[in-house]
Amino acid sequence: MLKVPEHQVAGRQAIDGKLGPLIDNSSHFYKPLQDDDERGTGELTFYHSFSSNTRIPHHIRRFFPVFYGTQLLKASDGSGLRPHLVLQDITSDHLNPSILDIKIGSRTWYLEASNDYIQNCFHRDKTTTTVSLGFRLCGLQIYNESSFWKPERKLVRSFTADNVRSVLRMFVSSNVGPEPDFCFADSVYGGCDGILLKTWFEDQTMYHFCSCLVLLLFDKESFLKGKTPFAEVKLIDFAHVVDGNSVIDHNFLGGLCSFIKFVSQVLADSKGSTMED
Amino acid sequence: MLKVPEHQVAGRQAIDGKLGPLIDNSSHFYKPLQDDDERGTGELTFYHSFSSNTRIPHHIRRFFPVFYGTQLLKASDGSGLRPHLVLQDITSDHLNPSILDIKIGSRTWYLEASNDYIQNCFHRDKTTTTVSLGFRLCGLQIYNESSFWKPERKLVRSFTADNVRSVLRMFVSSNVGPEPDFCFADSVYGGCDGILLKTWFEDQTMYHFCSCLVLLLFDKESFLKGKTPFAEVKLIDFAHVVDGNSVIDHNFLGGLCSFIKFVSQVLADSKGSTMED
Repeated sequence: MLKVPEHQVAGRQAIDGKLGPLIDNSSHFYKPLQDDDERGTGELTFYHSFSSNTRIPHHIRRFFPVFYGTQLLKASDGSGLRPHLVLQDITSDHLNPSILDIKIGSRTWYLEASNDYIQNCFHRDKTTTTVSLGFRLCGLQIYNESSFWKPERKLVRSFTADNVRSVLRMFVSSNVGPEPDFCFADSVYGGCDGILLKTWFEDQTMYHFCSCLVLLLFDKESFLKGKTPFAEVKLIDFAHVVDGNSVIDHNFLGGLCSFIKFVSQVLADSKGSTMED
Repeated sequence: MLKVPEHQVAGRQAIDGKLGPLIDNSSHFYKPLQDDDERGTGELTFYHSFSSNTRIPHHIRRFFPVFYGTQLLKASDGSGLRPHLVLQDITSDHLNPSILDIKIGSRTWYLEASNDYIQNCFHRDKTTTTVSLGFRLCGLQIYNESSFWKPERKLVRSFTADNVRSVLRMFVSSNVGPEPDFCFADSVYGGCDGILLKTWFEDQTMYHFCSCLVLLLFDKESFLKGKTPFAEVKLIDFAHVVDGNSVIDHNFLGGLCSFIKFVSQVLADSKGSTMED
């Protein structure tokens, strides 16, 4: 049985008769192909290229959802059969995951795009934290005391740098409010995933990941029960990946480094707050 | 006696009655203050802040020209006395230096600028290599066999990624033409200046260096005579430095990493070509 993903925090949703992704009970995530994909320029093209690319190191491949091919399915908007990407459902092993979707890069447009697309992105980039921070939050849910805080898209888009800092603190705290306890900061932010990704982006010149998201997942309940994995880092949304043309993805890399710095500041604050205790 | 700098390859020049920088015989470079500076928002403000900033590591300070203060001088455009920044003349110890001026970053505008300024930069960034490579060449001169190759500004602006690669090869070769010998690649590009700068930019959140240049100087004659320094790396042009607001300069960092990758590719090619010999 297909259903609407419960823990989707950004992107098009399969609600109110609209076209969006679906999941099943076997950890599959079905993402409807856009018309672009059918012309061979979008996400499907990327997954085909990436999954057969022997130059992707094993320790980098794990940051990407597993790709199982495509399948014809009844689309969620009632328009009949449509090809869907069949991907790994990242949230399937988690009951109440906290999730951040972060769009990386200080520029979400690319030279190959249409003028209208560029102008729209340019405006959105200037009016969110994309230009100033090199990334923006696109959606989030934070689980605390048996409920989720899941702010509306419009609110998330209005976030300032200080709001982003607060969210990053709240994400790794056992409480919600002005005095975060940073309880899980070291366990969630203290790993080496950021460094591994950064090192790869300093070198790889195959793909430019325009408008791509980093999904951070943290499952507090699993962590407290000693279950692994309690945290995940995945890159998602590859509809605007373009050829790297022997140049590194300096836009993604710069944004990623800025995000890493934000996270490391939260980590440093958490250590400061522990030492004062 | 003040004179027009012989080895200036980009920026406003003090020729044809225009306002531009001057040098003396004591290694000083006099740069006329723009009206912005007099309002306290431009290059002078940066030099005051930077020179008194105790958080700049010693090994980073050496990448910046020494700042000696300001001085009232007769402006080169005949408009009378005008305050000038007094800076270190980077080229003064070199008879025939090869020079590259590289504007770092995939975005040369910044949010605090006027709409007109942003639109002009946005257009220039898209039509040069700024967006695609994360940097662009702004000017250059390459010394070879008793003469300089110093292409006109218009030609430099039209450079593609391949042109940039050719220039980076030619810069470290003893010959000019389609088959560079990469003779000096290891000596010029094999050092750790790029890594030192990159490491600092991954961490520093004090300044955002918009529209700033990296000047690379290589003095072949000094090198062949065993004289040091035969190469210099300096950051110049700080008219558009803005407050970092606790965020790293992800725009400069991304562009710098892309430039480092280009240079490392030339270095790898040079080793390949040596092994084939």
